[in-house]
Amino acid sequence: MPQNDQTSAFDLATAVRRAEGPALLADLDPGWEIGGGILNGGYLLSVAGRAAVLESPHEHPVAMSASYLRAGAAGPATLTVTPGPAGRTLAHSLITLADEGGPVITVQATTATLSADAVPEYTLPMPDVPGPDECLDMAANAHLAAVPIQLPGMARHVESRLDPATATWALGQPSDHPVLRAWVRFADGRPADPLALLTFADVLPPTSFATGRMGWAPTVQLQVLVRALPAPGWCLVEARASEIADGWSDEDYRIWDSTGRLVAQSRQLARTAR
Amino acid sequence: MPQNDQTSAFDLATAVRRAEGPALLADLDPGWEIGGGILNGGYLLSVAGRAAVLESPHEHPVAMSASYLRAGAAGPATLTVTPGPAGRTLAHSLITLADEGGPVITVQATTATLSADAVPEYTLPMPDVPGPDECLDMAANAHLAAVPIQLPGMARHVESRLDPATATWALGQPSDHPVLRAWVRFADGRPADPLALLTFADVLPPTSFATGRMGWAPTVQLQVLVRALPAPGWCLVEARASEIADGWSDEDYRIWDSTGRLVAQSRQLARTAR
Repeated sequence: MPQNDQTSAFDLATAVRRAEGPALLADLDPGWEIGGGILNGGYLLSVAGRAAVLESPHEHPVAMSASYLRAGAAGPATLTVTPGPAGRTLAHSLITLADEGGPVITVQATTATLSADAVPEYTLPMPDVPGPDECLDMAANAHLAAVPIQLPGMARHVESRLDPATATWALGQPSDHPVLRAWVRFADGRPADPLALLTFADVLPPTSFATGRMGWAPTVQLQVLVRALPAPGWCLVEARASEIADGWSDEDYRIWDSTGRLVAQSRQLARTAR
Repeated sequence: MPQNDQTSAFDLATAVRRAEGPALLADLDPGWEIGGGILNGGYLLSVAGRAAVLESPHEHPVAMSASYLRAGAAGPATLTVTPGPAGRTLAHSLITLADEGGPVITVQATTATLSADAVPEYTLPMPDVPGPDECLDMAANAHLAAVPIQLPGMARHVESRLDPATATWALGQPSDHPVLRAWVRFADGRPADPLALLTFADVLPPTSFATGRMGWAPTVQLQVLVRALPAPGWCLVEARASEIADGWSDEDYRIWDSTGRLVAQSRQLARTAR
């Protein structure tokens, strides 16, 4: 069970390093693709998050908003960090992640230092979901699905267990509600942390899958708020769309850690097939 | 009842104009303050939205993410728009709004052209709330409140009627739930549109008011998604916090128009008193 930056697949794939010029360098890893060689948007945001904290006096990305300019490809990438105001509580910066074809995402980052032991005055309770062992392992059961399920390369790195209540579409029985819930964790046992939550905030298929509409939904703009340091173990991810109309959809995520603490929220605007 | 850009208070206060240099100019209006001369964050986002559409082939701001670098003051301001990729469906840009003290907000904008007659495949229903006439007019009843209510200058421009179910705090009976719901509209009758929704997405007091904790909660980062063109009439705004902890809170908004169509969503990270 890898526990440090040197050995986990996620840490290797999101590593950024200083170079001679002002830009940081990264190697975008083809293993984090979601089909057709297109890299997962959350993965790209984690790479940007690592650049943000490297250039900040603070340790954690607490608010990250990204515009997705075009699909990112695996290979060498640069990260340009423009620092904004920084203080004792938080720091702002603007990050551009570019691959060899040009800018892929621009990110507004707010970094801060989250407390490990803050007791919430108010926190949204975790929904009532069966434990991971009673949920559906998509990777192990893809061949049983009534709907052909193409597992993305990323599924080798992130294990997911789908709540049976939101998995009926895989058995050929779509729901009226665009909602998906799943337990997720890294396959190699790396514990979740704020950088991991940036990936988990875009880890599920489009929620329109739940209603029987399979199809890719490219992210246009994604905001992730990291609210707390997650405890070790599985995280519960809930995604729901509030409106699907005219070729646009939103994906609204809430993520709880294994203790039931809300640790992240995200919302994205995505394009859908009309 | 003003119906055009020349006469409504909102259009005057958010006007941007071209000048000799590359930056657009605006005059930030002291009338849109929320106390202490600090301008409302939604108002500032509307000014940026106007700059975004002025420099875009598309008509509507559909996704706007802003980092709030410091409190903005009334007076002359510049807007620098850096165009990103633009296509038939959408265009990206980055906007910096600066007052005489320097940058106030940076905004990632996505503009597009929303259809006036698209029928949603799925849309979140409006909650069951009494009509505006059965809701609480805070401006007219501020003197009756058990809790001293300081109405911001902005309340002269935006009328609000608070759902009695989320107004018990004003009568000295705080709730356990950080939720506020209110009907809102411009006082001078200007109809709502996508630019107005950017202001409505930050128009209510902090939801911690509902739990009896009065106090300013400066916005750190705000994302607004505009999902549809609102019908004329009141809009219903619902705001809720999902977690208040360690000096941080979120404010999660949904906005429906008078026909019950979900027209906007927003989420912000804010600082709270600890």
